[in-house]
Order: sequence, then structure tokens, then C-alpha cells
Amino acid sequence: MFEVAEVGQKLDRDTYDQLVPQLRERLLDVQFRLKSADFSVVIVIGGVEGAGKGETVNLLMEWLDTRGVAVHALAPQGHRTQEHPGLYRFWRELPPKGKIAIFFGSWYTRPIVDYVFRRSDELRFDRELSRIVDFELMLSNEGTLLLKFRLHISKKQQRHRLKKLKSSSRTAWRVTRNDWKFHAMYDHFRPVCSRALERTSTGHALWNIIEAADRRFRHATTAQRIVSAIEERLNRKPALPQPAAALPVPPRVNVIHSLDLRRKPDEQKYSDKLDKHQASLGHLARQLGGANRAVVVVFEGPDAAGKGGCIRRIVQALDARFYRVLPIAAPTDEERARPYLWRFWRHLPGRGHVAIYDRSWYGRVLVERIEELCTPNDWQRAYAEINSFEEQLVDSGIVLVKFWLAISPEEQLRRFQEREATGYKRYKLTGEDLRNREKWPAYEAAACEMFANTSTETAPWTLVEAEDKHYARVKVLKTLVDRVKSALNCDPKCHLKRRPK
Amino acid sequence: MFEVAEVGQKLDRDTYDQLVPQLRERLLDVQFRLKSADFSVVIVIGGVEGAGKGETVNLLMEWLDTRGVAVHALAPQGHRTQEHPGLYRFWRELPPKGKIAIFFGSWYTRPIVDYVFRRSDELRFDRELSRIVDFELMLSNEGTLLLKFRLHISKKQQRHRLKKLKSSSRTAWRVTRNDWKFHAMYDHFRPVCSRALERTSTGHALWNIIEAADRRFRHATTAQRIVSAIEERLNRKPALPQPAAALPVPPRVNVIHSLDLRRKPDEQKYSDKLDKHQASLGHLARQLGGANRAVVVVFEGPDAAGKGGCIRRIVQALDARFYRVLPIAAPTDEERARPYLWRFWRHLPGRGHVAIYDRSWYGRVLVERIEELCTPNDWQRAYAEINSFEEQLVDSGIVLVKFWLAISPEEQLRRFQEREATGYKRYKLTGEDLRNREKWPAYEAAACEMFANTSTETAPWTLVEAEDKHYARVKVLKTLVDRVKSALNCDPKCHLKRRPK
Repeated sequence: MFEVAEVGQKLDRDTYDQLVPQLRERLLDVQFRLKSADFSVVIVIGGVEGAGKGETVNLLMEWLDTRGVAVHALAPQGHRTQEHPGLYRFWRELPPKGKIAIFFGSWYTRPIVDYVFRRSDELRFDRELSRIVDFELMLSNEGTLLLKFRLHISKKQQRHRLKKLKSSSRTAWRVTRNDWKFHAMYDHFRPVCSRALERTSTGHALWNIIEAADRRFRHATTAQRIVSAIEERLNRKPALPQPAAALPVPPRVNVIHSLDLRRKPDEQKYSDKLDKHQASLGHLARQLGGANRAVVVVFEGPDAAGKGGCIRRIVQALDARFYRVLPIAAPTDEERARPYLWRFWRHLPGRGHVAIYDRSWYGRVLVERIEELCTPNDWQRAYAEINSFEEQLVDSGIVLVKFWLAISPEEQLRRFQEREATGYKRYKLTGEDLRNREKWPAYEAAACEMFANTSTETAPWTLVEAEDKHYARVKVLKTLVDRVKSALNCDPKCHLKRRPK
Repeated sequence: MFEVAEVGQKLDRDTYDQLVPQLRERLLDVQFRLKSADFSVVIVIGGVEGAGKGETVNLLMEWLDTRGVAVHALAPQGHRTQEHPGLYRFWRELPPKGKIAIFFGSWYTRPIVDYVFRRSDELRFDRELSRIVDFELMLSNEGTLLLKFRLHISKKQQRHRLKKLKSSSRTAWRVTRNDWKFHAMYDHFRPVCSRALERTSTGHALWNIIEAADRRFRHATTAQRIVSAIEERLNRKPALPQPAAALPVPPRVNVIHSLDLRRKPDEQKYSDKLDKHQASLGHLARQLGGANRAVVVVFEGPDAAGKGGCIRRIVQALDARFYRVLPIAAPTDEERARPYLWRFWRHLPGRGHVAIYDRSWYGRVLVERIEELCTPNDWQRAYAEINSFEEQLVDSGIVLVKFWLAISPEEQLRRFQEREATGYKRYKLTGEDLRNREKWPAYEAAACEMFANTSTETAPWTLVEAEDKHYARVKVLKTLVDRVKSALNCDPKCHLKRRPK
């Protein structure tokens, strides 16, 4: 793959000097237009040591208006210090609409280095590349313009370059022992990088391989490609709105209908059972930190299904210092300016902590789908995006437990009326609630589709028959206890290999 | 101070059982009303080990709606791992309007522990307490309701409590070696804590000292005080709007007028000088990380004073991985929901990094004052708030350099017209620009007042004669180089003792 960048392309000084003023003006121009556009730009600069990555980024920063661009140099993290999934740090730094982020050292670094140094095997390397493809596809679908550059020099050029830097007292500090170590490994890196690039050079996120030995050629080519990619995107006509999809209709027999919603516990044993499970949960939760684990609990279900009550019973068992309840309401403007999942990534729990999401990222395929708050394409691709997100959580050691609390529409109405009667619950039945009830079948159909698409081996849904609140609470707590217990007894990575029993 | 909480206050079970349902209902009620109020609530729970802090917080979380409250347990940080000023972590977690945050382990912990274990002296302890007073006053002025609780038990009760916990297998894990170590130090802690509470029990942030030996008394009293404080605040009548202050008029002779704005450099040496200073800056910047230092540069001055050009010359000397230019525009809604300085705290540079603020927190006493975007009280108190903020930056090892670029109104008009002529700069002289020019004397007067109030020993302003752009750039770079150089040659704390020459 790299041969294309070993053909000796150069740019003479005169041509370069003529090009530069135009290039700079066009760069500033597209950056100015970008400010009010509804997409962001992510630029990835990669390449071997000595290929001039730093120089190129510095040059871009000199040519651009620094106020609209941020550079992120995220050094690869040791596995030990890693508290969150590998992509977490990159998610956190995604730029809002109208801005540019340059990633210097990107999501490619660790998978490649790990594989070359045999800290991962081929299966893992492949999986990590697939994950990157998913991530970049999601970015692209969410409106991010992704520009990836690989600055390439040959092994001979690399040696030459490192020696030259070393020879001058002004630049000698830039050559570290690591650089020589990587130089010695050049031939090992090359095929691995090539494989990574081939696998991830997709339609929405092509790699630009830049022949980097000649400084002027490298700079002009990189800047030119950035300008034309942003220009092209700015000039793109907005897509015609898709016709709204008809509301989904639930099949007559479905997974929710097949539940016996009225299941009841043995009332006499209710409080014993609750106590027992709470005690186990409290005990297990204290072991999370030491085991390098965290827990994410997701609650979904119709209004008044009893999510709040279940959450209350869970947190009673936990130490307030180590849990967080995250009610998911309308996104803030900072959240709205970034890809949809950003607002969930930013609140992921650290080691030893429990995060309870009261409604979640599943809003995308439920309320946002039914109320047409996003396009059909948006919610259709969300299934795969969510699966990839959840797989990353589980892979990083998070115990992920998802509950759907199921009640009938009649029970919901009864509970609405009860709330209205109790001043204390401060509730008024509004027109909105009633309208939502009309769409009950559509919500139910969307939920069934969601179970089918997102109840995965790594992150299954637990459907809870919730017309009897006591029954629901016991089932939720017992499930949670079982899941945490079995997670603490196994290696976080083992779910990848385990066969379902 | 603690004697008030050693009188044996108790609550019998019957009274408690009667109280609790009312208390819970009132708690939920105030929390519900808080949601749409324009203030946030910060609760600090402190006290010796074994006083029941954890139990109390867990209970509050059970009684409150967990969706509107977050608990932050921030363990004291070692000095070595500290990358930011001590209050940084607390600033980051400040709740938005309508929400409650409970701090468990607060900004009091480290100053007290450091002093008791002789890692700080009396001067430093006193200073840290003063800083806390400033911080809490600022919170209160910014609309945060601050409720501080100190749960108190006597040494004898503490021993009794630790032994009791130790004796049961269900609770023995809660007693650590550290607890016994602190128990042995009880008599050393007591006067130090007492001093801290006395110094910081101010009108806007009173301490509630709670006799904590009796569980029921402790819980009921804490909850009651929280309820009544929030209730009182919710019922408070909004203050009548203050009459707008007249626009300030600059004195005939002032510090800006006394500048010779037209100073010019020796043109022939301009580029040599620029090169020299940029080389020094680049060299010094590489040493920042190793010296545990960071740099914050602030640019203020009229529109078209040349801030962008100066920033460009600075970043040319830096490695793009280690600097960030922060243009200060309108706050986001997350920023607007928190105290004014929050949005500056959140972007503070880490070790080895340079942050350049293009306009800054000084907007409060300039544009927000003149355009009446805040009340007179808001900008008047901002001087002291800013000084405290900047002192914390400098104290934590940040080199803070503040530039005011001064031009005359005639020069500004000339530059506006020039911009309009150059398509490339994409500028149109708007009515707004001309209106702003009418207020020139007011802005100038506000700036002079700002210099008088915020050009401190630790963070002086540098006024730059900026009608000649070359002169301004050389002065900016030279000042920056000198400041960074002298900071690298001295201990970060020494500014506290150094006498001005």
C-alpha cells in the first residue's frame, strides 16, 4: 500500500512559493465558511517517526485561524492506567459543529503498537480495526468530515532523517531512544500499518497517503487535500428530506405480549427477598474497585412503569460516594453540537463506580424514532452504533445490565390517575400524556424491534413484568446481583470467547 | 466551638418516626420547586471519622429524588499528582441551576490535614482559609445556596463507635488503619478544625455543627436544616433591580493616555528580534513539563488592536501539541447555568501546556459592565474574585501573563476600513462597530479601573503600545520570554515571600 508514496515526488521552491499564498487564503476561507456550517472536521495525522507529523501540524496551525481549531496529542495509554474504553479519550475531544480538531496520535496508535509488540493477537487486532470502522462510519453519519493522513517515508529515509536531526544541537532533543527502537522495528510495523489502512480506508473515511520525504511536497499536498475536502463538503447540496416512515405496528404476538405482566411475588417473602438481594448487591459493589470493574444499569419502559422505584431500591444498597443516577432529558447545546452518543460517553463511570441511566441512548430508536426527531436513516443505523458502543463498555470491564419494565396501557392509566390524586407526587395528567398513549402500539413495536436488534450476547435485555411493583423490584435486584456476581468471577475479556450455554 | 455539639442531644424513636414522613415529603417538595429555580444547592458534609457522614449522605440520597442530585467524594490528592490548582476539582463538579451537589470530602480536607501533619505552616493554612472564604463568597454571590454541615462526636464516642463497627463482621471492613491513626490524632485535629470553622463560618456560608452521636437526632436535624434553608431561599423575594450605573468617564490623565502609542521598533532589526525571541520561547516551552509548570497568556484590548497577530507570532514558536488558543465568545447553556468563572476553570492547561485566551474573564469588568450584561454588584465584586482566581493559578505553578494592547480610536477606524477593503479579511464595518466606538471613553475608563484593581504583584498587567504592530509583537514576545524564564528559575511558591525590587 505504501509503494504509491515511494516514487520520489517533490516540489521545487518556486512552485511552492507560488502555491502557498493561494493555499493559505483558501484555507482561511473554508475555515470561515465552516464556522456557520452544520458539521465539524476531524483531521488525523499519522505516520512513522521522522516523517514530519509535528512540522505538518505546526504548519497547519500557522496557516489556519487558531481560534477555530484544537490539536489533541493523546499519547497511547498503558492498559493499567486505562479507566475507560479505549475510544473514550477521543470521544471526549470530538469538536462541536463549525470547528476543527487535529488528532496527533489517534485511535490507530494503540491497536497497531499492541499488535506489533505482541500484546494482542490477530483476533483482537481485527476486532479493533472493525471497531474503528464502526466509529468512523458513525462520525461520518453524524455529520463529521473525517480526513485521515498517513505521512510516509521509507526505512532508509527514516534513518537519514533521524541522523540529520541528531547531528544538530538545535534538533537533537527531538530524537529519543524510542525513535531508534521503532526504526529497528520498521519492517515489522510496515505490514501491520498497511493492513490497518487497507481495512479502514472506507468510502466515508479514505486514507490520504502522503509521500513525506520532501517537506514542500508534503505540506502543499496535505493542505491542498484539506482545502478541497472541506470546500467540497461546504458546496454539497443538502439532501432532500426523506418521507417520514409510517408508524410501526406491533406483530400480534410479540415478546412483550408474551410476558405475563401480572406476575406476583410471594408477598410474605417480599421484604426478606429484597433485603437479601440488597445485602448481596452492597457486598458485591464494594469489590468492584479492586476488580477494576464498573457497572452501568439502563432502565427503559413506558412512563409510570416504575423505573424510579426500582432505582431507589438499587441505590439503597449502595454507598452514595460510588453511584450516580443519570436522568436523560433534552440534550444541552454542547451535546447537540456533537455526535449523538457523546453525551453518554462523557458520563461513563470510573473504576468501582455504578452509573444508573434513567432512560438512555435507546431514546434514539424509541421516542426519537416515533416522534420523528431524527431521520429514518439515523435511527436505523443506531442499532449497530449502540451495539458497538455497548461492546466497548463490556470489553473495558463494565458490567452492563439493561432493563425494560413492561406494563399494560390500562395499568399506566391507573397509575397516572393515582399520581394525580396524590398531591405529593405533584402530577397533572396533560394532553401530552394522553397523546403519547395513543401511540402505544407504535412504541411497543419500536421496542420489540429494539430487543431484536440490541439484545446481544454481550449485553442482553432483561424484560421485567412490572404490573406488580414488588415483583418487578425483586426481579431487577436479583438480575443485577447475578450479573455482577458472574462478572466478578470471570475475566472481563472472556465474553468474547465464551459460547452461550 | 464544638462544645455546642457535646450536650447529649437525642431523639426518641417515636418522635423520629413521626417526623420522618413529613420531612421526606418536604424534602421532595423543595427539590421539585428547586428544579425551575435559578439557583443551585451545594451541600458540604464534613466531620471526624465515625461521625456517620456516609450514613447521613446515604440517607439523604434515599429521601431525595436521586435524579436531581449528585454526590462527589473527592479524596484528597497528593501534591505530586496535582496537575491543577487545589479548587479545580471542585469547580469542575459545581452543579447547574436547579440541581443539588453533595460534597463528601470537600475543599476543607486538604488544608486541615496538611496543617495537622505539618506539611504546611500557619501562614499557608491561613491563606488557604482566606481562599475558601473568597470561594464561598463567590459561590453565594453567583446564586449558589451553600449548606455546610460538620458532624461532631467526642473522642470517647469516636473510640466507642470504631470498636463497635470493628466488632461486627458486617461492618468491620469499614474501619481502616487510617481511622485509628486519625483517632490517635483527635486532639490535634480538634483545634485546627475549630479554627477552620471559625474562620469560614461567614454570613453567606454558616457552618451547621450537628451533634452526631445519636443517629436519629443527626439525621432529622440535618434534613430539617436542608429543607428550611432551601425553602427560605425559594420564598425569598427577588431583589429589586438596581438602577444602572452611569457610564464611567476616564480621568483626563490616565495610564493609557500616558503611553506613547506610536512607539516603533528599529525596523531593520524587527525580524532578527522576532526570530530571537521566538527561538527562546520555543526553548523555554519545552522545559515547562519537566518543571511542572504551565503558561496562561491573556489578551485584552479594543477590537482590531492586533491580538490575533500577536497570538500568531507566539504559537509559531510553540509545538502544536502543547498549546491551545481559547477564543472567548458567548457562554454555552451549560456554562450559563454555573458561576461566571466556571468556563475559564474548565479549560485550564495541564502541566507543560500553554493556554492563550483571546479575551478572557476580564470581559466581566469590561463589556459586561459597559453593556449592562450584569449588575453593578456583579462586576464590582469581580475584581476580588479575579484576583483570587489568578492567585490560585500562580500558586499552582502557572505562569500568568496578561497583555493589554492599546491603540487610539483613530487607529482603530483606520484598521476597520483597511479590513473592509481586504476581501480576504472578510470584514464589514457594521452599525454595532460604530456604536461601540461611541462608547470608547467608557471602555477606556473601565480598563483603567481594571488595571488599578487587578494589576497585582502576582499577576501584573503589561500594557503594550500597539499602533505599530511590529513594536507590539516584539514587546509581547520579549515580555513573555522574560516572565517564563524567571518563573522557571524560581520556586512556584516564592512569589508569596518575594519583595518587589
